[in-house]
Amino acid sequence: MNKVDHLIHAKWMVTCADDNQVLEDHTLVIHDNKILAILPGTEATQRYQANDEQHYLSHAITPGFINSHTHIAMNLFRGLADDLELMDWLNNHIWPAESKWVSQELVYDGSLLAMAEMIRCGTICFNDMYFFLGATAQAAELAGMRAHIGMTIIDVPTAWAKTTEEYFTKAIEFYQQYKNNELITPTLAPHSTYTVSTENLEKVKKLADDYHLKINIHLQEAPSEIEYSIKKYHQRPLQRLHNIGMLSPNLIAIHMTQINDADFAILQETQPNIVHCPESNMKLVSGSCPVEKLAQMGINVALGTDGAASNNDLDMLGEMRSAALLGKITANDPKALPAMHALKMATINGAKALGIEHITGSLEPGKAADFIAIDLNHIETQPVYHPVSQIVYATPRSQVTDVWVAGKQLLKNRELTTLDEKELIKKAQTWRKKIKS
Amino acid sequence: MNKVDHLIHAKWMVTCADDNQVLEDHTLVIHDNKILAILPGTEATQRYQANDEQHYLSHAITPGFINSHTHIAMNLFRGLADDLELMDWLNNHIWPAESKWVSQELVYDGSLLAMAEMIRCGTICFNDMYFFLGATAQAAELAGMRAHIGMTIIDVPTAWAKTTEEYFTKAIEFYQQYKNNELITPTLAPHSTYTVSTENLEKVKKLADDYHLKINIHLQEAPSEIEYSIKKYHQRPLQRLHNIGMLSPNLIAIHMTQINDADFAILQETQPNIVHCPESNMKLVSGSCPVEKLAQMGINVALGTDGAASNNDLDMLGEMRSAALLGKITANDPKALPAMHALKMATINGAKALGIEHITGSLEPGKAADFIAIDLNHIETQPVYHPVSQIVYATPRSQVTDVWVAGKQLLKNRELTTLDEKELIKKAQTWRKKIKS
Repeated sequence: MNKVDHLIHAKWMVTCADDNQVLEDHTLVIHDNKILAILPGTEATQRYQANDEQHYLSHAITPGFINSHTHIAMNLFRGLADDLELMDWLNNHIWPAESKWVSQELVYDGSLLAMAEMIRCGTICFNDMYFFLGATAQAAELAGMRAHIGMTIIDVPTAWAKTTEEYFTKAIEFYQQYKNNELITPTLAPHSTYTVSTENLEKVKKLADDYHLKINIHLQEAPSEIEYSIKKYHQRPLQRLHNIGMLSPNLIAIHMTQINDADFAILQETQPNIVHCPESNMKLVSGSCPVEKLAQMGINVALGTDGAASNNDLDMLGEMRSAALLGKITANDPKALPAMHALKMATINGAKALGIEHITGSLEPGKAADFIAIDLNHIETQPVYHPVSQIVYATPRSQVTDVWVAGKQLLKNRELTTLDEKELIKKAQTWRKKIKS
Repeated sequence: MNKVDHLIHAKWMVTCADDNQVLEDHTLVIHDNKILAILPGTEATQRYQANDEQHYLSHAITPGFINSHTHIAMNLFRGLADDLELMDWLNNHIWPAESKWVSQELVYDGSLLAMAEMIRCGTICFNDMYFFLGATAQAAELAGMRAHIGMTIIDVPTAWAKTTEEYFTKAIEFYQQYKNNELITPTLAPHSTYTVSTENLEKVKKLADDYHLKINIHLQEAPSEIEYSIKKYHQRPLQRLHNIGMLSPNLIAIHMTQINDADFAILQETQPNIVHCPESNMKLVSGSCPVEKLAQMGINVALGTDGAASNNDLDMLGEMRSAALLGKITANDPKALPAMHALKMATINGAKALGIEHITGSLEPGKAADFIAIDLNHIETQPVYHPVSQIVYATPRSQVTDVWVAGKQLLKNRELTTLDEKELIKKAQTWRKKIKS
C-alpha cells in the first residue's frame, strides 16, 4: 500500500481533459498537493492508504473555475448604478466613485469581498485588472487563491499613478516583488487601444517580451471603440495591435464582440486567446463574441464575468449558462456551445489563456490539486441524467460545497476556511455608507 | 391597540405597486390572511398587537413570484436531452419519453418536485399546461401554492386523452371539480395554432366565453410556426386567432418572439397578455420577444420559465436577470428593461395576465398575504445600494428565506413546511432509473 495525503471519492468526476470523460465512482489520489492518479474507487482504496479520505457521494468533482476577466475590487461598487448607457455609467457614476474612493484600503477590502464570493461559487483562479496591485496580491495570499494580477497601464491619471511613466514604474516594482510567487502571477494590462498611445503600447510589448509576461487588453468591446480607432488611427484596434506586433498566443484579448472577416483572418494567423464576458456584454449592449465560430477555427476562448459593477456577480456557473444561451442565439443554432463546451471555457480554456494549463484547468495526473465538489442531491438538480448538463443549465452556486486550491481546502461544506464572512460583510456595509454619502 | 395575526417587519419592502416604491423599515400588517396595512415600523407597533411578529432585519420583502408559463411535471425530464434542434429534441427525445412515461403518477411526482423548487426560489403561483390535470391540482393542494392549471386541448392522442373530444370532456370535468377552489384556477390551454384545428379553436373560444375562462396558447414561438401557418392557412397564427375572435385581454399568448408590424397593430387593438420566456427562447433559438416595445405600447408582458426540460430550471430570479439582459440586447438599449421592470414582470404583470391582480402580485392593503423574504446580508449581495438592482442582478435563489401564500408560510428559513424534500429527491431518483432504462 502506498501512503498518500488524500483520497477524494466522488459519484461523478468531470475531468475537462481532451477526451471529455465523465467518470462514475472514481477517486482522485492526491499527494504533495498534486493529483497523483484518477482511479476507479475500489482500485484506489486497494492501492493507496491516505491520511484523509473525503466521500463526495452525491457530488460531481470538476476542476475549479477560472474567471478569466475581473476587476474584483469593484465588488464594493456592485449595484451602485445600473441600466444606463455605457458612457453615462462610466462618466457620471463609476469614474467619479473610483476617483473619489479607490485606494489601497478599498482595493484590499473589495478584493477580499470578491474572493469570498468567488470561492463560494467554485472559482479557484482569477485574472484581474485594476489599481493598487499590492492590495489585491496581499488579499489573494490571505485567501489562498490563484491570482493573475494585471499591472494596469493607462494614459489617464488615477489615485494609483499620475503619469504613464509612473504606471510602468509601479508595474516593474510589482513584477519584481511577485515574479517568483507560487500562486500569484503578474501580467501586463494596457487598458485598451483607446486609452493607451501607440508609443506606450510598444513599450508594453517590449516589457512583455523582456519579462515573459502575458498581456491583457480590453479589445473591440463595442462598436464605438472601432469607430474611434478608424477615425483616429485609420485602422481597427486589432489591426493596430497587429502592426505593433502584439498579437500572439501571449495576448489575452478581452471581449472581442466586434469581429469582421479581416479580423477573423488576423486572429487565425496570430492565435491570441480571447476572453468572453457574456453577461457584461449583454448588460451594456456591447455586442456578442462569436464563440462557436472562433472555437471551430481553433482559437481558444475562455470565460470571464467582468467586474461586479457591470454584471453584477462573479458567479461562473451563471456565466457558463449565459455563455451557452447567448452562444446559441449568436450562432443561430441550438446545438452551438453545448454544456461541456461552456464548462471547458470556464476551466481548461481559462488555464490555456493564462498559460497555466500544465498546472491546472483539468483533472489529470501531475496537475495541482485544484478541484471543487458540487452536490447534485438537491431539489434543484434532480433527477441527474447528465451531470454536465445539470451543472451548466440548472445548478445554483449554493450547491458548490468544497473548493481546493493546490491541495489546500478553501471552502469546506460551504464554510470559508481562510476568510471571515461576517467581517467582510461588515466592511462592505461601512464602505457603502461612505460611498453613498 | 388592534389585535392582528402577524406583524412582518422588514428592512426593505418592494411593493411592486404603481408608484414603484421601495420602503425602508416598514411593516406588513396581516390579518385574516390578507394585508391590512403597510406602515412605518414604529407606527405599526404602536397601532397593532400581533399574535406573531417576524423580524426580517436584513431582508427585502417582495410580492411572491408568479411563474406565468410552466410545464411543471417535466421536471422529471430535466436535462434528459440538451443542446439539440427543436424538432430533434421533441421527436427523438421528449415526445418518446412522454408517450412512454406520462401518467397520473409521473405528473403527481413531477409536479411536487417542481413545486418544491418553485417555493424554494420564491414562487407562489404558476400557470401550467400539461396532462393529468387532477394530479397537478392534488399536488398544488398539498403544497399550498396558487395554481392556474391549463386544460390542454390538442389534436394529438396522448396517454391523457385519445381524441380531441376526450380532451374537451376531461377539461369540463376538471373545470366542474375545481371551479370554486380558492387557490386552484382552471384555464383553457389549446396547445398551439399548429396542433389544434380551426374548428376546435372555435370550440375553445365558446367554452372560454361560457365559463369565463382564460385561454393560454403557445403563439408565434419560432419562425417555423409562422411558415407553417402561412402555407396551410395563408395567414400568420396571430391573424388566424384574431379571425376566430380569440384575441382579447382574456388571452395569454405565450412566447410571441415573432412580431411584425401587422402583428403589433393587432396586439395594440386587442390587448392580449403576453408571457415572455427568455431562457427557453434562447436555448432553443426561437427568437426574442420585443418586451420593451410592447411595454411602451401598454401591452402587459409577464414572465415564465417554460418547462425544466427546456430551460433547465424554474428559477424566477435567474429568469428576471435573463429577461433584463436579453431585453437590453433586443431593444439595442442598455436602459431598456431595467431591474424594476423585470421584477414587475415576475409579480404584478403575472397577476394581471392571470386575471388575479385584485388578489395578488403587489403588496397593497386588501390583497392576500402573499409575500417572500430575501436575505441580502450575504457576501453575494453586499453592499446594498439599491435593493431592486441587487435582487434582479445579483441575488442567488438560495437567499430566498421565507415564502407566504394566503397567510400560510410555505418556506420557513429555507425549510419547506408542506413538502418532504428528501422524499421528493428519492422519488426523482426512482423515476430517473425507469426513464433512463
